[in-house]
Amino acid sequence: MTQLTRLRDEMRQRGLDALWVSRPANVRYLTGFTSPADGKVLVTQDRATLYTDARYTVQAAEESALPQFIARPPATYEHASADVGRGVVGFEADHLTVAGLEELEAAWPDATLKAAPGLVEELRSCKDDREIEAIRAAQALADRVYAEVRPMIRAGVREADIALEIEQRLRRAGATNAFDVIVASGPRGAMPHGTASDRVMQDGELVTIDMGACLNGYNSDMTRTVAIGTPTDEMRRVYGAVLEAEEAAVQAVKPGARAADLDALARGILERHGLAEAFAHSLGHGVGLMVHEAPGLRGTSEDVLKPGMLVTIEPGAYLPGVGGVRIEDLVLVTEDGYEVLSQAVKETV
Amino acid sequence: MTQLTRLRDEMRQRGLDALWVSRPANVRYLTGFTSPADGKVLVTQDRATLYTDARYTVQAAEESALPQFIARPPATYEHASADVGRGVVGFEADHLTVAGLEELEAAWPDATLKAAPGLVEELRSCKDDREIEAIRAAQALADRVYAEVRPMIRAGVREADIALEIEQRLRRAGATNAFDVIVASGPRGAMPHGTASDRVMQDGELVTIDMGACLNGYNSDMTRTVAIGTPTDEMRRVYGAVLEAEEAAVQAVKPGARAADLDALARGILERHGLAEAFAHSLGHGVGLMVHEAPGLRGTSEDVLKPGMLVTIEPGAYLPGVGGVRIEDLVLVTEDGYEVLSQAVKETV
Repeated sequence: MTQLTRLRDEMRQRGLDALWVSRPANVRYLTGFTSPADGKVLVTQDRATLYTDARYTVQAAEESALPQFIARPPATYEHASADVGRGVVGFEADHLTVAGLEELEAAWPDATLKAAPGLVEELRSCKDDREIEAIRAAQALADRVYAEVRPMIRAGVREADIALEIEQRLRRAGATNAFDVIVASGPRGAMPHGTASDRVMQDGELVTIDMGACLNGYNSDMTRTVAIGTPTDEMRRVYGAVLEAEEAAVQAVKPGARAADLDALARGILERHGLAEAFAHSLGHGVGLMVHEAPGLRGTSEDVLKPGMLVTIEPGAYLPGVGGVRIEDLVLVTEDGYEVLSQAVKETV
Repeated sequence: MTQLTRLRDEMRQRGLDALWVSRPANVRYLTGFTSPADGKVLVTQDRATLYTDARYTVQAAEESALPQFIARPPATYEHASADVGRGVVGFEADHLTVAGLEELEAAWPDATLKAAPGLVEELRSCKDDREIEAIRAAQALADRVYAEVRPMIRAGVREADIALEIEQRLRRAGATNAFDVIVASGPRGAMPHGTASDRVMQDGELVTIDMGACLNGYNSDMTRTVAIGTPTDEMRRVYGAVLEAEEAAVQAVKPGARAADLDALARGILERHGLAEAFAHSLGHGVGLMVHEAPGLRGTSEDVLKPGMLVTIEPGAYLPGVGGVRIEDLVLVTEDGYEVLSQAVKETV
C-alpha cells in the first residue's frame, strides 16, 4: 500500500519506530476502515494493525485488508505493546487528548512517546489520481444539485427549504451533505457560518449558499452568493469586490505559491475596497477525506502549494446588521497551475 | 444561571480557580452558543467569558448572554490571562488535545494547569425540567416518524430508502438526524453500527432500525427490530431473548441503581440463552446535548443512577453471517423509578 510506504519513510526521517494513529480520517486513509470514531492503527516498519472493538468485527473485515485486533482498551494496548516494545512511538498530538496520552503512557511504560502531529495529514494533503477523481465526482454532483436548486431561491421561500432540497438531492444520488448546508439571506449573510434557518427570503436580498457533497468518503466544498431581485448598490459593490478578490486568488494558484501570499493577495484587494475588516476569516483550506484539512490558506500559514493539493479559495465580506457575500471555488493545484473543479455559475448581481 | 452556579460549587470543591471549557456540548450548556466547534469558555468564581472568532460575531451575540471576546488564539489566550493569573486552571483532559494543552501552558506560564475531566459532563448527566421536555419532544417526534415509516419496511425496498424517509420526515418537522440512521437487514443485522446500505430487504429477514431526532440541540435515541414475513426459528428465539433482557433491565431502572448492575442483569439473561458472546457492546448510555454522554451503562462503570438522568437500555445479539437483534428504549430516571420515553411499538416477530 503506497500510503503506508510513504508514511514509513516519514517515520524513519523523524526517528519514530512506530506511530499510533487515532484521527478517524487518518485511520480511514491508511486502512480503508470507515468507522467514524472507533478505529486506531499502529504502524511500524514491518507491520500495521487495525484496532477496533467488537461492534465492528464484520465491518472491519469487509473494509480493510490490514491485520485486525478486535477488543477494547486495555486489551488493545496490551496487544500493541509487543510491537511498541522499547521504541519511540509517535502520537497525533493535535488529535489525541491529554487523557488519551496518559492511557498510552500507562500501557507502554518502556516506550518513549513523542508528539508527531500532522504526519498522515501531510501525506493526505497531496491527493493521488484516485482521490482527485473521487473529489471531482463529489463536486460534479454538487454542481448539478446547485443548478437544479438555484431556481427555487426566490422571495417567499424559507432558507431551510433550500437546504433540505439540496440535501435530499445529494442523498438520492448516493451522497451526503459534507457539512450542514449554509443558506444565509439578507442580514443573516453577515454570519459566515449561519446554517439555514426558518427565515423567509425577500426581494432585494443577497443569499449565500455554501454546500458540499460527501461521496465515497471524499468531500467537495463550494459557495455562491446570489441575488433575489435587485440588491442595494452597497451590497452589489461588496459582491463585486469579493468576486474580484476571489478570481485574483484563484488565478494565482500554482505549485510553489505560498498559502500566506494568496491570503494576502485577496485581503489586499478587499482592503482597497474598504473591506479589510469585513473579511473575518482565512482565505481557504484543503479538502479531502475531511472538509477542512491541510494545507491552511491563511496569513500565518507556512504551507506551500504542491501538485495534487485540492484547496478552497473563499474570500468573503460580512457587514453585521446589513448582509454578506462569500464566493468559494474548489481548486486543484496542477503541475503547472490550477484547475477549478467547481463549475456552478457565478451570477452578476 | 443555575448551571454556572453548580459548576462553581464543583470548582471550589476541587480547588480550581478557573475552568477552561473546550468541549462544544459543554460550551453550549454553559452559554447557549451553538457553534459546533469554535467556542470556548473561561469560568472563574466571579466571571464567565465566551471566546470565539470573528465568523461568529453575530451568532454569539444572538445566542449567549455571557460577556464575549471575539478573536483567535493567541489573542484569546492573552485576554483570558487576566482572569487566569497565577491560579489553578482546570482543563477538560478528555477533550483537550495534547497540542491544545501545550498552547495553554505557553500562553499562561504563571498558572497551574490541572486535569479536570468530566466536571460539566457530570452536571449535564442530570437534566432539569426544561431539558427533559426538550428530549421528550425529540423522542415523541422520533416515535411519530417511526410509526409513519414502519409500513414501508418490506421485501424489495432498499435499506437506504427507509433511512432517507426517516431523515426527510425529521427535517420537515424542524429536526435533524441525531446520528446516521441505522437500517441493518438480514446478515447486515450482525453489524451493530451498520448504517443503511443499498441492500434490498427480503422476506423472512429481521431488520434493525436505530434512529434519533435532534430537536433544539437535544437528542433522542431508540432501536426497534422488526420482521419481514416469518424469520427463522433461530432468529425469533434470539429476538425473544433480547426483548426479555431489555425489559428486565428497563424495569430495574431507579435512583440508586448501579449502572454496572443493570449491565450485568441484561448480560446474565442473554447468557442463559447462550448469547453471552453475541452481546458485544455495553448496555446503554446517557443522552442529551450529545447522543452518547454520561452516565455509561457498562460493566466497568462506577456510575449510579440519579433522578433526571436519561439513559438508553439497548441490549443486542449479533451472529456474524446470520443476523442480529437490538432493542433500545430511552428511559428517564424519576424520583422513585423510571419512565420510558420511547413509545414506538415493539412487535412480536
